[in-house]
Amino acid sequence: MMKNRKIILKQRPKGSPKKSDFDIIAEDIKPLKQNDLLLKTIYLSLDPYMRGRMNEAKSYAKPIKIDSVMEGETVSQVVETKNKNYKIGDIVIGKTGWQEFHICSPETIRKINPDIAPISTALGVLGMPGKTAYIGIKNFAKPKKGETIVVSAASGAVGSTVGQIAKIFGCNVIGIVGSNEKLNYVKNVLKFHDCLNYKEDNFEENLKNICKNGIDIYWENVHGKTFDAVLPLLNNFSRIPVCGLISIYNSTSWPKGIHNLPFLFRQILTKRIMIKGFLVFDHNNEDKEIYEQLSLWIKDNKLIYKEDIRIGFEKTIETFIGLFKGNNFGKLIMQFSDDPFKKENIKL
Amino acid sequence: MMKNRKIILKQRPKGSPKKSDFDIIAEDIKPLKQNDLLLKTIYLSLDPYMRGRMNEAKSYAKPIKIDSVMEGETVSQVVETKNKNYKIGDIVIGKTGWQEFHICSPETIRKINPDIAPISTALGVLGMPGKTAYIGIKNFAKPKKGETIVVSAASGAVGSTVGQIAKIFGCNVIGIVGSNEKLNYVKNVLKFHDCLNYKEDNFEENLKNICKNGIDIYWENVHGKTFDAVLPLLNNFSRIPVCGLISIYNSTSWPKGIHNLPFLFRQILTKRIMIKGFLVFDHNNEDKEIYEQLSLWIKDNKLIYKEDIRIGFEKTIETFIGLFKGNNFGKLIMQFSDDPFKKENIKL
Repeated sequence: MMKNRKIILKQRPKGSPKKSDFDIIAEDIKPLKQNDLLLKTIYLSLDPYMRGRMNEAKSYAKPIKIDSVMEGETVSQVVETKNKNYKIGDIVIGKTGWQEFHICSPETIRKINPDIAPISTALGVLGMPGKTAYIGIKNFAKPKKGETIVVSAASGAVGSTVGQIAKIFGCNVIGIVGSNEKLNYVKNVLKFHDCLNYKEDNFEENLKNICKNGIDIYWENVHGKTFDAVLPLLNNFSRIPVCGLISIYNSTSWPKGIHNLPFLFRQILTKRIMIKGFLVFDHNNEDKEIYEQLSLWIKDNKLIYKEDIRIGFEKTIETFIGLFKGNNFGKLIMQFSDDPFKKENIKL
Repeated sequence: MMKNRKIILKQRPKGSPKKSDFDIIAEDIKPLKQNDLLLKTIYLSLDPYMRGRMNEAKSYAKPIKIDSVMEGETVSQVVETKNKNYKIGDIVIGKTGWQEFHICSPETIRKINPDIAPISTALGVLGMPGKTAYIGIKNFAKPKKGETIVVSAASGAVGSTVGQIAKIFGCNVIGIVGSNEKLNYVKNVLKFHDCLNYKEDNFEENLKNICKNGIDIYWENVHGKTFDAVLPLLNNFSRIPVCGLISIYNSTSWPKGIHNLPFLFRQILTKRIMIKGFLVFDHNNEDKEIYEQLSLWIKDNKLIYKEDIRIGFEKTIETFIGLFKGNNFGKLIMQFSDDPFKKENIKL
């Protein structure tokens, strides 16, 4: 009988997740019921939000239960089917979790078309990160031509898309990153107007010098030092969409940045700033528009994306832990099995 | 020759303003130039924002200069005129400052009609505080019928108007105040649905019990303990208009409330909260609509207001200092001279 391997949550992490918070379990794959499908995972998306789900605290989604499989979005292939609408070989996207196989009913998945773009992009620029960027810019940041936007985590899946969309909207786009390798990528490949490494000396001063006309939009998804540097530079009527906060998922106390909360609120008041949280789930009715537009921009070379694909089911836990240390560069994806649409492929 | 007395800023206060930060000066009143008017101050508005102007730091308005007269909005009477559009006895509103007389050119003032309401209301419910409430509710809080709004400083000039407008919009209105006298007023005169004194024991628990369906709008103008109690109760898609922050005007360090900034930002994200700063000056084109609507509600007894009028130029400084201790109850106004439209009047 075929075996499935899955990664479960053994205990709730305190602070940064550790290897001992997880366990790997092998189990028999049960026979399919009528209408069900057996999926073999090709790609698993690893994302900061998963750390939040490991907490007990109520959030926008339920916490993962102890001893349950870790949740996550995957691109999978149908390897067995008792459903007439799906044939073996179909590629689907769904929340099937950190495991090699998954039995599911078809309501929880949707087919993806491998002709539009590499199938892994359904986890990145043509998936949740791309949608987050699009919604955040179009619905909340509402950029006007000539405005200055500062994008934190600029080389990441969301940040890189945010900056490129803002460029299309005619903004002056400044990226913030945490390494010089990422800085080169943002400046020379994504071609943002400028980019700074927040770990460098004189970061605040350099940001001030670059943003001569102030900052109209701050794309907030790392928090910390960058927020402190951005805050005094914000212009009247500036906007801060809040879509995810990688550096606070782990922390119980404030790590760094915005020590001066009265200053934050005085800025909000006197500069008429808007801070707005949003989640992509609220915007599913806009999916068609979003993915059509993003696909067009990719086709026109206006939207470049970078994937950081790590190979091997066994490496999942350590790769996830590294995500919070800024180890990845581009959309972080695990590959568990061969991608049939890739010319060069792995042997697994 | 007639003398004017004026209160000047002697030095920039550190923290709470002290008597020694001000000085009273008497000066001769100069002869009028062509087109100018001599105004005699009847009412002076005292407001928390004035504390902000006493700082050197750049804000939405320029700081008051050392040795300059303290700025403030007044209702005055024309006592001498070299302008054909103004006659002696006309009542005007303008930013003529903390002084008994003022010479001005007519561009900086506007006439008010004493037939609509008592002339002092031009500093309160039919002035900036009323406008702040109206703009904040209509443009930013955007209440829907049945939603719950929590209004801090509920007995104040802005808060009392906010709550009553929210009632007109069909909201469940909860006030927060700092004394039982104010609590009685909010419950029994303004007839908010409920009201709590944040100084009472079990304040957080009581707020939770009252707001069974959570909080959709938080009217933020005191900050501190109330924010901490409100934050966990906010609903998805809640709104926090930020119009003024009395408790932080004096403080260089955070006094109390929102110790847990990661929690604030996690709430913003997961509950898709909007925090939006605004200033009434940006909405001068809406003045006609605003004041017509507010006047109608006053006429229909849907909008009650309370003034706290203190008599005597000499009492101005101590009254202003008391404003930051919550000493006033209702819109705080100084009266320097007789109001010709009041039946019972003072002898000055």
